[in-house]
Amino acid sequence: MTNIIDKDRVLIFDTTLRDGEQSPGATMTHDEKLEIAELLDDMGVDIIEAGFPIASEGDFKAVSEIAERSKNSVICGLARANFKDIDRCAEAVRKSAKPRIHTFIGTSALHRAIPNLTMDEMADKIHETVTHARNLVDNVQWSPMDATRTEWDYLCRVIEIAIKAGATTINIPDTVGYTAPAESADLIKRLIETVPGADEVIFATHCHNDLGMATANSLAAVAGGARQIECTINGLGERAGNTALEEVVMALKVRNDIMPWKTGIDTQKIMHISRRVATVSGFNVQFNKAIVGKNAFAHESGIHQDGMLKNKETFEIMRPEDVGLSGTSLPLGKHSGRAALRDKLSTLGFEVGDNQLKDLFVRFKDLADRKKEVFDDDIVALMRSGEDAENDHLQLVSMKVVCGTGGPAEATVEMEIDGEDLTAVENGDGPVDATFKAIRKIYPNTARLQLYQVNAVTEGTDAQATVSVRLEEDGIIATGESSNTDTVMASAKAYINALNRVIIRRGKVGEGADTREISYKDVT
Amino acid sequence: MTNIIDKDRVLIFDTTLRDGEQSPGATMTHDEKLEIAELLDDMGVDIIEAGFPIASEGDFKAVSEIAERSKNSVICGLARANFKDIDRCAEAVRKSAKPRIHTFIGTSALHRAIPNLTMDEMADKIHETVTHARNLVDNVQWSPMDATRTEWDYLCRVIEIAIKAGATTINIPDTVGYTAPAESADLIKRLIETVPGADEVIFATHCHNDLGMATANSLAAVAGGARQIECTINGLGERAGNTALEEVVMALKVRNDIMPWKTGIDTQKIMHISRRVATVSGFNVQFNKAIVGKNAFAHESGIHQDGMLKNKETFEIMRPEDVGLSGTSLPLGKHSGRAALRDKLSTLGFEVGDNQLKDLFVRFKDLADRKKEVFDDDIVALMRSGEDAENDHLQLVSMKVVCGTGGPAEATVEMEIDGEDLTAVENGDGPVDATFKAIRKIYPNTARLQLYQVNAVTEGTDAQATVSVRLEEDGIIATGESSNTDTVMASAKAYINALNRVIIRRGKVGEGADTREISYKDVT
Repeated sequence: MTNIIDKDRVLIFDTTLRDGEQSPGATMTHDEKLEIAELLDDMGVDIIEAGFPIASEGDFKAVSEIAERSKNSVICGLARANFKDIDRCAEAVRKSAKPRIHTFIGTSALHRAIPNLTMDEMADKIHETVTHARNLVDNVQWSPMDATRTEWDYLCRVIEIAIKAGATTINIPDTVGYTAPAESADLIKRLIETVPGADEVIFATHCHNDLGMATANSLAAVAGGARQIECTINGLGERAGNTALEEVVMALKVRNDIMPWKTGIDTQKIMHISRRVATVSGFNVQFNKAIVGKNAFAHESGIHQDGMLKNKETFEIMRPEDVGLSGTSLPLGKHSGRAALRDKLSTLGFEVGDNQLKDLFVRFKDLADRKKEVFDDDIVALMRSGEDAENDHLQLVSMKVVCGTGGPAEATVEMEIDGEDLTAVENGDGPVDATFKAIRKIYPNTARLQLYQVNAVTEGTDAQATVSVRLEEDGIIATGESSNTDTVMASAKAYINALNRVIIRRGKVGEGADTREISYKDVT
Repeated sequence: MTNIIDKDRVLIFDTTLRDGEQSPGATMTHDEKLEIAELLDDMGVDIIEAGFPIASEGDFKAVSEIAERSKNSVICGLARANFKDIDRCAEAVRKSAKPRIHTFIGTSALHRAIPNLTMDEMADKIHETVTHARNLVDNVQWSPMDATRTEWDYLCRVIEIAIKAGATTINIPDTVGYTAPAESADLIKRLIETVPGADEVIFATHCHNDLGMATANSLAAVAGGARQIECTINGLGERAGNTALEEVVMALKVRNDIMPWKTGIDTQKIMHISRRVATVSGFNVQFNKAIVGKNAFAHESGIHQDGMLKNKETFEIMRPEDVGLSGTSLPLGKHSGRAALRDKLSTLGFEVGDNQLKDLFVRFKDLADRKKEVFDDDIVALMRSGEDAENDHLQLVSMKVVCGTGGPAEATVEMEIDGEDLTAVENGDGPVDATFKAIRKIYPNTARLQLYQVNAVTEGTDAQATVSVRLEEDGIIATGESSNTDTVMASAKAYINALNRVIIRRGKVGEGADTREISYKDVT
């Protein structure tokens, strides 16, 4: 166990911005990273892994700014096992009140073979790099990547080296999502019993969900003595993703009788951050996702629902309110005033300034004129769609589309680029294809459409739809989003929004999420 | 343990068509149920729970027809603890070569309180009903609903009664998704050790994913001695869903070293059935879903992917081919002939007759004329969009939509109803709203739109989009789907498709998935 913290306390280490953000297509902008970090800090996450500073200028800037701004959380950056990575990471987290460096190396036979190091050579490298990191900050986390497939004796040996060199947290990653609960608990338990000095550090668990067991494996590791769980919002991450923060946190809360450990998370903030991460990553949560899925609290429909509601407890182990779902929220309408809008925004977790409220209110009124009831999700969509449009390079001025069974769709699009007004008319396979072609005619580009997705925000045929467009151009990936009651217009705006982001990243003007020159999977 | 089957063999009991289908909005038609049942039978599922015969005429017909058609699987129906339910169930499964009745009652204090039965009264009821079921078929499964929250002594007592009355399988449901792996294993182990006669029956585990641990709980139960896992494709089911078949099956395959049990599932058929269930239920699978998510086998993108590919093993524990993902499949084009299309369909798991192929080929050519590359997913969409259009009550004849920034969208829709040609022009908030309004003008109805969803089937701006529309009218829920390169046209067709299904169900003309008069949660 550990003498550093209360033995019943489990630290929540969120890596949405590092391991989550690196999943193909989940790239976030600088501003989005800052927003998510603020929400994580605010909900009580103990440690935020904010990025991989050496990987790109954007990662470095995001980690630095998050380090400077965060109020409560420890801010951590990732570094491979070399001095350059570690120095860059130290520089990035420097402004945090509680900086941490997380350095790692792949210790399994498969991973040792990549840099072609012997066991002894790798051991020396671990000693040197952890010592170096500890000379720069007091809080150093070390991970033997692919730990669950590393030889037992060697794993004990390298962990002992890392502890002696000054690591304060030892993280045991199940990099490929290979382990199972009993094995996960046993590994941590045996390491703590075996490795000299293990009682003076915190052991962490980092699981992937390839076999659908990340949550159970993480909780089993805690039963085995781990006191830090590494996770992401919505289980975002490569392949099947990482352990989902909301699942481990709610499981510890609901089953505290058999898992007597507590976290510092304000669970009522779960739904809001889940929705924001889904939006900015473009990774929607499936209806039947545990805790945060649309159906997670929905029971069998039909005539017998009433009877069931009378005996809620019989089929409900958590209350929707526990995760921040307010079931009985009343929709706004055309007669709702500015104060009502501000109240609603506040309930939804958005605090806005007077100017932003003024702008939002105009757009709210416009929407309320068209839609009888304006639901919470409509308001969230309204918040999103107004973000950073003013400074965009490409602006939509007007558009008209004709489509149907009579022939190809025809789109007329008018855009402003650098003060110049340009118009194009194009035919296409459906209204969206025609519109995108017209936009490409006005602004020729080679960006490839990776994802086109439409989701109705609320119920009813006059629902706002949120369109997500993901583009890829020479390794730059950018997601644009727009909400409108008109799906074709939302598609045009989302596409232009994504193009604007590609343009920003092309110029590498410090907007974050630029092309990474380095991957954590590179040979170090 | 059990002496009935090989002790290393775990039976897979699929309840996609019963517990999965009853999740709000996942209603399937009769034909869809038959198709899914055929795929389940074909992939090696040991027991198919095909429905809840007493619940509705549609459920009864689906179970009967699946019982008659299935070649290998045991066909099971659900029945509450009363003679009427059990008789109806026996009648439904009668034509199966291997019929099973699954009867249950809620045994926890909370559930006993609903019918207001004492422990003794409930014990008598269990004895009577299981005896009755066993007099009708040889294969009887009994479940104490909410077992994980039932008092230990009482649980042992009622299980013993069920076994003595002739139950051959005892299922232990974690109805509310409340348990954790160690507890799940321990419960089964202690039951088998404690209950007289336990060694003569098979113990089953039925988990829900409310805390994200259904897969681990099911596998832990197997470690504890259970030899039947109850699960659904994609983890479909109420709230956070049931245990996902693909996860337990692949976990047993990948980690056979520590979980030395085998199933009879042909894992290469997983992706196809996963896609079909996602389609017919309208429940999309999230990108980062284990095994079947779009990203499950996708690694970090970018310039370093090449390096990673050289060391696939370092980050991959399963091969995409193991679950039926053929990564290197070549797209078809306008020069592809009928034989190429048939080959492709066969690779994708569809066997079509000459007439269907002829019809498909016409539509394939039409698509290939418009689209440079026709991908596997395009072909799947083509297969879907042609289904059962001929006999529909409402038919789309033509449509034209004008939309843009200049004012409200205007839709002109022409439809045929019972041989009569009707046209309507309507304005709306966006092209889809205008189109839906025009359809409602032609065919007035009170069905409420519960879900409107658009997904691009393939990449590129000329991608086909699949639109799902879910309608609800007086408790009848119907999902319509259509694929087209024109999203507005696909929306119109999906909406009309859903309306046609509502009409069928209104008439209760034996098309299945009609309104259930009875819920399994009713007091028995």
